Amino acid sequence: MFFCLPLSCKNNGQSSGSNDEPKPDFKEKYFSQILDHFNYNSMGNGTYLQRYLITDQYWKKGHGPIFFYTGNEGDIWAFALNSGFITELAAEQSALLIFAEHRYYGKSLPFGKDSFNIPEVGLLTVEQALADYAVMITDLRKELNAEACPVVVFGGSYGGMLSVYMRLRYPNVVAGALAASAPILSTAGMGDSAQFFRDVTADFENYSPACRDAVEGAFQKLQTLAQLQDYARIKTEFALCKTPSSSQDVHQLNGFLRNAFTLMAMLDYPYSTEFMGNMPAHPVKVACDTMLNRTDLMAALRDTVGIVYNSTGGMTCFDLYALYVECADPTGCGLGFDSLAWDYQACTEIEMCFESNNVTDMFPPMPFTEQQRQQYCARRWGVLPRLGWLKTQFWGDSLLTASNIIFSNGNLDPWANGGIRKSLSSSLIAINIAEGAHHLDLRASNPSDPDSVVKARQKEAEIIAQWVKLERSV
Amino acid sequence: MFFCLPLSCKNNGQSSGSNDEPKPDFKEKYFSQILDHFNYNSMGNGTYLQRYLITDQYWKKGHGPIFFYTGNEGDIWAFALNSGFITELAAEQSALLIFAEHRYYGKSLPFGKDSFNIPEVGLLTVEQALADYAVMITDLRKELNAEACPVVVFGGSYGGMLSVYMRLRYPNVVAGALAASAPILSTAGMGDSAQFFRDVTADFENYSPACRDAVEGAFQKLQTLAQLQDYARIKTEFALCKTPSSSQDVHQLNGFLRNAFTLMAMLDYPYSTEFMGNMPAHPVKVACDTMLNRTDLMAALRDTVGIVYNSTGGMTCFDLYALYVECADPTGCGLGFDSLAWDYQACTEIEMCFESNNVTDMFPPMPFTEQQRQQYCARRWGVLPRLGWLKTQFWGDSLLTASNIIFSNGNLDPWANGGIRKSLSSSLIAINIAEGAHHLDLRASNPSDPDSVVKARQKEAEIIAQWVKLERSV
Repeated sequence: MFFCLPLSCKNNGQSSGSNDEPKPDFKEKYFSQILDHFNYNSMGNGTYLQRYLITDQYWKKGHGPIFFYTGNEGDIWAFALNSGFITELAAEQSALLIFAEHRYYGKSLPFGKDSFNIPEVGLLTVEQALADYAVMITDLRKELNAEACPVVVFGGSYGGMLSVYMRLRYPNVVAGALAASAPILSTAGMGDSAQFFRDVTADFENYSPACRDAVEGAFQKLQTLAQLQDYARIKTEFALCKTPSSSQDVHQLNGFLRNAFTLMAMLDYPYSTEFMGNMPAHPVKVACDTMLNRTDLMAALRDTVGIVYNSTGGMTCFDLYALYVECADPTGCGLGFDSLAWDYQACTEIEMCFESNNVTDMFPPMPFTEQQRQQYCARRWGVLPRLGWLKTQFWGDSLLTASNIIFSNGNLDPWANGGIRKSLSSSLIAINIAEGAHHLDLRASNPSDPDSVVKARQKEAEIIAQWVKLERSV
Repeated sequence: MFFCLPLSCKNNGQSSGSNDEPKPDFKEKYFSQILDHFNYNSMGNGTYLQRYLITDQYWKKGHGPIFFYTGNEGDIWAFALNSGFITELAAEQSALLIFAEHRYYGKSLPFGKDSFNIPEVGLLTVEQALADYAVMITDLRKELNAEACPVVVFGGSYGGMLSVYMRLRYPNVVAGALAASAPILSTAGMGDSAQFFRDVTADFENYSPACRDAVEGAFQKLQTLAQLQDYARIKTEFALCKTPSSSQDVHQLNGFLRNAFTLMAMLDYPYSTEFMGNMPAHPVKVACDTMLNRTDLMAALRDTVGIVYNSTGGMTCFDLYALYVECADPTGCGLGFDSLAWDYQACTEIEMCFESNNVTDMFPPMPFTEQQRQQYCARRWGVLPRLGWLKTQFWGDSLLTASNIIFSNGNLDPWANGGIRKSLSSSLIAINIAEGAHHLDLRASNPSDPDSVVKARQKEAEIIAQWVKLERSV
């Protein structure tokens, strides 16, 4: 799970967003935030500047609700410009709109370029991020004379997890949460390690069983070449910049290839996007059409991953280690500072031991055991992951004492089955979107939207309006 | 609020407890606890030994509930031996009984004798303590094959606050909380600074208006002597070991005297106790009888505070600075390591700006402003208190989304009106005990118990049994 590909990272998210999306007049501001909420005598005995975007252009001042996006693992502009539904809703419900950046991402680096040193990185935790948001909301409400204005939090993916956690932790501060594509179970060690890549595979298989077979066949051909150590041929077939020279290089290639399918499954939107790299409309269809377009399976695979890595067609060869970095998250960490931060989170609180096994999925077996994770994390960050911690801290599936949370998921999204798929009570509501990929519902309305997401957004809007109304009456 | 007086501290709580109380067969154990739950790369990157007491003598193994005392600011034996009601309830409801010691108190010192150095003291926070309990409960349940056993938390005073917070924070771990005399509002900056000493005064006034007048008159005589700088006379009148020589010494004397009344009001039990020093039965009555027994008001005041500081009569003079230490908690921090820890907590998260003003109370005006607190805390601990933080973290009075909490308070207890006095919902239940002092309900049954506490305990027992039953059916 990561939020910028090398190509899109460069523009820092600020020029992305499709032309169809509303363009709210965000002001970029910085909030003087407490560095360490849980230790009064730590190295972090001070403040840092936390970035946030705010617009009151839709707000009925002092009365309309506050819609607050709990920023996740990336530049906050990327989320603001790709979550047009929240803007539309703000306009409809006269809300103040705030997108807050997560500490250690984007420009919210507590220690600048030293933020990823040890021990400075230690203040990157879910709990600190939640406390940031609680403090920011509380202070901004005072500053803006908005103490009577109900706050609803929104988030997608890890940001959706944070929205859930905000409602669990701070129901005194937030009236409700829309958590889109939030895999709160699988990231808390309550998943099945085969689930993720099985569901990636299902997307391609559902489009066409032949597509799955072709991808699997291509990977098998690669394995055969690898066993023969025919590295020159591998270089040619996959248009690599450098000839592989070890099984480690082949492992890297497998990860690089698998990752393209992960992204196309997650971002299988009905129109082209620039959210996480440039993605065509219906990328799974495009991928399968590409896979099935030629008989040379390896060439087909090369062309198919090119949809992700070489969308402009300008790349003459693939630099494996520059385009894909293996990390503690087998679904990918991306590149750049943001990827460091996510790697650290995957090494500490967030559990993501997903593996492909070539039985329930179309990929080569790529085990990722807890032991491998531990070894990597100890070496890379000097930490050991805390198994079960997120489940203890944020309740796992024991959510019945909570209220006012929408868990939306798209059936196309490989993260979906790591989340809440059935309503747990009248105020813990699951919304499943048949034709939806990764938090499609948070994106702006689009003429290509399937009916299922249009209906989901309507339902979300109604429920949120109800929360706001009820909160006022308390 | 503090839990051992100099005289009782020496025995470390282990020999205290009245003869009438049940003597559960506690085993003293140590749990390998994570030092810093919120930073994976901090100085606290390791574990410490957290003490707990456990007995399974009443437990229906693997089925009966777990009654868990969330230890507060003192040696855990003191609480275990003075909370006999929980033991009685464990026997009645076949529960496993655990008393867990709060980090930085008793023998649970994360850095041994260096625990109160800066920065080592920084890991003393409410959040860390709660995480300790959540982790301990989760691990012990596994270890004892008790994962199906509902957990109910108990606590008195600050321990009661922790029990409330456990239910707010970890409803996945604890099914309900009995919070006895937990001043969750006044310690979260939501109180009235005059409340505490007004309510101390009310206890004496309610016994006899003449008593209040006598105490007030005695303090006024002292002030007159102080204005005349007649320090020799003050020494004689109050049997001080050293002649005062400054207004600071007089201030210390006032604090020392006022504190005795605080303790007698808090511990106004109908039988003698050794919980926080040796206290006779009905100390408020004893104090007033002493105050009204002689016409020399200052001598009467001296004799009255002697009930607290010189219960055995063996002390020939009062050493003001040895018997009372001024700190960030105007109701007192006690002495020894435990008092250091409490002072630090009162300098960081716990807000207690109580003042006497001689208008709504019988004491001399002793202002304690936020500014004074800040200056003291910066100088003493290198920290600034975080105003409003506890309210944000633990919901202040916005508790309607919570459930399964009993807020019990005794009407004699000066802490009571800093807590929840009215039920907020059918599962957020206030129980007010007409003749009760500071968490009398947690103490063992006693023939001298007033009817009000007997009834309160019955109600508590019924509600707790109901929680356990409901939790099993989920």
